Amino acid sequence: MKKDILMGVIGTGRIGKLHVENINRLVPGGRVIAVADVMIEQSRAWAEEEGIKYIYNDYNELLANPEVEAVVIATPTNTHAEVAIAAAKAGKQIFLEKPVDLSLDRIHEVMEAVKAAGVICQIGFNRRFDHNFRRVREMVENGKVGDPYVIRVTSRDPAPPPISYIKVSGGLFVDMMIHDFDMVRYLSGSDAVKITAKGANLLDPAIGEAGDIDTAVVTLEMANGAIAVIDNSRQAVYGYDQRVEVFGSKGQAIAYNDKPSTVELYTEETVSTDKIRYFFLDRYTGAFIDQFVAFIDAVNGQSEVVVDVLDGLRAVEMALAATESLHTGKTVELKL
Amino acid sequence: MKKDILMGVIGTGRIGKLHVENINRLVPGGRVIAVADVMIEQSRAWAEEEGIKYIYNDYNELLANPEVEAVVIATPTNTHAEVAIAAAKAGKQIFLEKPVDLSLDRIHEVMEAVKAAGVICQIGFNRRFDHNFRRVREMVENGKVGDPYVIRVTSRDPAPPPISYIKVSGGLFVDMMIHDFDMVRYLSGSDAVKITAKGANLLDPAIGEAGDIDTAVVTLEMANGAIAVIDNSRQAVYGYDQRVEVFGSKGQAIAYNDKPSTVELYTEETVSTDKIRYFFLDRYTGAFIDQFVAFIDAVNGQSEVVVDVLDGLRAVEMALAATESLHTGKTVELKL
Amino acid sequence: MKKDILMGVIGTGRIGKLHVENINRLVPGGRVIAVADVMIEQSRAWAEEEGIKYIYNDYNELLANPEVEAVVIATPTNTHAEVAIAAAKAGKQIFLEKPVDLSLDRIHEVMEAVKAAGVICQIGFNRRFDHNFRRVREMVENGKVGDPYVIRVTSRDPAPPPISYIKVSGGLFVDMMIHDFDMVRYLSGSDAVKITAKGANLLDPAIGEAGDIDTAVVTLEMANGAIAVIDNSRQAVYGYDQRVEVFGSKGQAIAYNDKPSTVELYTEETVSTDKIRYFFLDRYTGAFIDQFVAFIDAVNGQSEVVVDVLDGLRAVEMALAATESLHTGKTVELKL
Amino acid sequence: MKKDILMGVIGTGRIGKLHVENINRLVPGGRVIAVADVMIEQSRAWAEEEGIKYIYNDYNELLANPEVEAVVIATPTNTHAEVAIAAAKAGKQIFLEKPVDLSLDRIHEVMEAVKAAGVICQIGFNRRFDHNFRRVREMVENGKVGDPYVIRVTSRDPAPPPISYIKVSGGLFVDMMIHDFDMVRYLSGSDAVKITAKGANLLDPAIGEAGDIDTAVVTLEMANGAIAVIDNSRQAVYGYDQRVEVFGSKGQAIAYNDKPSTVELYTEETVSTDKIRYFFLDRYTGAFIDQFVAFIDAVNGQSEVVVDVLDGLRAVEMALAATESLHTGKTVELKL
Repeated sequence: MKKDILMGVIGTGRIGKLHVENINRLVPGGRVIAVADVMIEQSRAWAEEEGIKYIYNDYNELLANPEVEAVVIATPTNTHAEVAIAAAKAGKQIFLEKPVDLSLDRIHEVMEAVKAAGVICQIGFNRRFDHNFRRVREMVENGKVGDPYVIRVTSRDPAPPPISYIKVSGGLFVDMMIHDFDMVRYLSGSDAVKITAKGANLLDPAIGEAGDIDTAVVTLEMANGAIAVIDNSRQAVYGYDQRVEVFGSKGQAIAYNDKPSTVELYTEETVSTDKIRYFFLDRYTGAFIDQFVAFIDAVNGQSEVVVDVLDGLRAVEMALAATESLHTGKTVELKL
Repeated sequence: MKKDILMGVIGTGRIGKLHVENINRLVPGGRVIAVADVMIEQSRAWAEEEGIKYIYNDYNELLANPEVEAVVIATPTNTHAEVAIAAAKAGKQIFLEKPVDLSLDRIHEVMEAVKAAGVICQIGFNRRFDHNFRRVREMVENGKVGDPYVIRVTSRDPAPPPISYIKVSGGLFVDMMIHDFDMVRYLSGSDAVKITAKGANLLDPAIGEAGDIDTAVVTLEMANGAIAVIDNSRQAVYGYDQRVEVFGSKGQAIAYNDKPSTVELYTEETVSTDKIRYFFLDRYTGAFIDQFVAFIDAVNGQSEVVVDVLDGLRAVEMALAATESLHTGKTVELKL
Repeated sequence: MKKDILMGVIGTGRIGKLHVENINRLVPGGRVIAVADVMIEQSRAWAEEEGIKYIYNDYNELLANPEVEAVVIATPTNTHAEVAIAAAKAGKQIFLEKPVDLSLDRIHEVMEAVKAAGVICQIGFNRRFDHNFRRVREMVENGKVGDPYVIRVTSRDPAPPPISYIKVSGGLFVDMMIHDFDMVRYLSGSDAVKITAKGANLLDPAIGEAGDIDTAVVTLEMANGAIAVIDNSRQAVYGYDQRVEVFGSKGQAIAYNDKPSTVELYTEETVSTDKIRYFFLDRYTGAFIDQFVAFIDAVNGQSEVVVDVLDGLRAVEMALAATESLHTGKTVELKL
Repeated sequence: MKKDILMGVIGTGRIGKLHVENINRLVPGGRVIAVADVMIEQSRAWAEEEGIKYIYNDYNELLANPEVEAVVIATPTNTHAEVAIAAAKAGKQIFLEKPVDLSLDRIHEVMEAVKAAGVICQIGFNRRFDHNFRRVREMVENGKVGDPYVIRVTSRDPAPPPISYIKVSGGLFVDMMIHDFDMVRYLSGSDAVKITAKGANLLDPAIGEAGDIDTAVVTLEMANGAIAVIDNSRQAVYGYDQRVEVFGSKGQAIAYNDKPSTVELYTEETVSTDKIRYFFLDRYTGAFIDQFVAFIDAVNGQSEVVVDVLDGLRAVEMALAATESLHTGKTVELKL
């Protein structure tokens, strides 16, 4: 039997904790033995309950632990690059939450550090591992839809984040649509060459006052000729609306929303079903696990890294270009 | 019992004939007693079989027939304005196929002639009468989806028209997306103020050589703040893809495609259903009838005209603006 | 062009009138020129409006009219046999509403009269012409589901008939499930050899007091080994529930209910769709037309009769056997 | 934080192992610390890998271990009663796989032993915990469908078991439909009073030669007046077909099959989706976990036992009655 990959998780906020629990319960071949967080005292009881052996305040101590082969970086965005570069220098295999950084220069530094260290670095675009979207991608890869002509991605949150978050998030394109930019690249197998963004503040004037939009439609002209269109909203009152569609020369693949049950109720008034899943933790449960299954495979050399730093870079480039397009009212060209 | 409205149909090509057959079999209160066509000899046997009393070569003779109260104009686009203006002057109630004309000035002339004559003029945007799209519109009107935020329209033909047609049609925005421009106005209850068009020639180089595109995504910023997005393709190999979606503050309404049966087949290989309806005559059968039911109601003064010349004007304005945007690469503002 | 088959309709109640209107508007090749009804005065204005040339009180006069080639018999059940036998003797082609008769002997007399006269006699099991059920039958015939193992038919009315009707109808198996007995034979391509009926009076005690049940489940052992199960209810508050399913060695075909539109509404409370069609006239619109298209084809010798008197006989035999099984509590064998 | 319930699992075949893995990874509040199996050497390596502290050959040693508070009995059916009675005498809380026993007398002995010991005993009817069927049950309980009139259960395996198993299983009603008998009781909240079974050997003559059937339709008259119908097949080539339906005075709830993804593929040939889940481990993944969540709740006194020995008894009574009905060709009455 193959030895488990021993892992450390840096950053034990909500997502960091989820990663630890998923890896230790549900990801064969991976085991978290160390965690680090600048506010580790708030997580110590949880970490002990989980049976974590090494509990650090300073992530450098975790990186110095020779038992740790691979790290998961789930710290705030503005520390991603620093921690990732340190991890690379320490020779650890890296799983890094998105976005890599908001500065393209810093992302390039991460790329170089990873390359120099000869380690792998997988970016946390978990939606690539979603059962529905992966199935659509398979159909594109297997030629079932032919050459992609139009890609459509709908992604709407059930409720907007707090205004305090919106003020520092970098804006809708950076904190929310970045997943969809990656999805368009994943589904189409191509890169955007031109981006045109339209947006509006329709939900809550406070969002506009904070300098952001809450509704957006972005059109992407892809290198392979396809046209992609993404629409986002900060609030779909009916739940977490996550759908994709690839239309091509041989057909079309559509991924609809997930629902908790298949039950239909027929009454005198109407025919109804369950609401769609409400929250990303319900919707992407399997994807959160499967991205680590893929990471463990890559660490073990059994497969290539599915989402690398270049993918992380491209998504940020697209988010920044969309932001520029929104502000200038013009189409922005991307240099690949 | 109310007396039938006696009608004349000008232009007896495929659509003109369909209108005659639908009105005489399926539209209560309307009866076609006269037809006119410059090539009427090709249609004489058919007209006699249908029991048409007056069969003319010259539409002016039809307009001079005092028995005819209302006319349906289904001639080639470049004659629409001329015939419509003559019909208005003759005091006939008018049903006019879309597009009204490709010249905005000519459309204004039709508007004025109709106004001066005090007749009604309904434009043939039959999709407004489709069972699915009408249901979505009802939901918007009844407040079920709240304030519209994002409107999505997908409209794809099963196969491209002949290159000879493409050369003279005015282009995809004018001959095809014009229906969808009207649909966006119908569903949102608002007008476009800015249009941004992206297009590509992906299907057949001959289409590009003829100066047209075959794939397009158009984004519309609406007066009420909503954003609409339309995608068109000249060819969806799986059939006539006709879907709309309105997302708003209280929810979302989605109209899916129609299929000939509800049957699902489960085999060892897959689960499959009927293909979607392949052709506009199958898909919009009911809409072709119901637009005349509405027209007869309007002629009888029982309801307002549902689609008037202003609607016809707006759709052409949008098509021309989209064409300009495609060519300049810039967003085009519309003056209302 | 082929000459129209000139037809007479005997019985101008609701269904008779529907047949006249459908044939004259929507069935190519057929034309109703005569009607007869013992209470014809109640229908005279309607018949004149429809342009019917011959309007009779006595059906014998209609049968004596040499212009009439084919007749549609839509009189009360207890006169079916008498009128059908007279029509056969008059050499008319016959379309006869179901049930042929409640007496097996009388049905045999009809069969013999039809045979002796050398005319065709199609029974009004319109559901065989339904778009959904016909599609399932095609799949069985084409071998897509393999050998049939289990056939399921659900058939529920939106509301019970008046108690006065229930008292004289012959009971649920005769007046309602008879359609489903025919459906089982149609879908399976086989005959029932044993019938076991279970029923209950759950809706309204008045139905039980009238000697009938309102809820029933009938199991049929078929000659080809398959088992069929039919469930009926006099009242499904959500509409007219009409579904079938054939499960076999190679797969399964399921026909779901029809709905007026494809629209889905997503709100904060639920996801809902249109209710299913509420009434048999909405649900079986196409089937009511297509059975006459098939009848005209058979009269013209272009195809075999799809539903003949033997089919009408079998369905009544099954209904009577089910009634017996319900009352004895035992399985009843059918002799073929 | 509440202390974990420490558990022992008796029988480490496929299902026993699944229970251990599920409880230790996915069931909060429960922990397996001991296993026993007469052939424990075949499972020792697995047990050690899972971190099981006590590994026994003889289940009596496990029952003698005072650390073990609750046991899961997953041994062959013919040992269920013996082990369960011993466990009750040892004062352990009991989770017992179905069927309790094939002898009604032995089941009564288990009931008495459990009662005498004052322990709980939950039977492994996992389907009651399925997300779809639980949702239907909720709708019945909440009055959404009103009084139940007709209950339909379809349950078909993807492939028949080996003939060697069929020879000793007790037959289709005992080894397969027993789940569906329980489902009918669960969904309707009522007991069967009469059972009529029809069956056939259609798949493979060897099944018939082994004295069993492979296709069955069973009708149940329920104490509350409803009629239930179950159909089973040993082989649905398209997968594991698991559906239920409750039709009542206020409406209807239908649970359809689960599929691995929501993706629809539109091609020139057809519209297709994923096949339904193929195997019970895929289909009832959540149910296998949730039954233990409920068991732990019951052990902790936070809820009643959801499925008790009486439920286990009723299901076996129904299976035996159905077997008798099949062989006699008569309806069998059940005494409650």
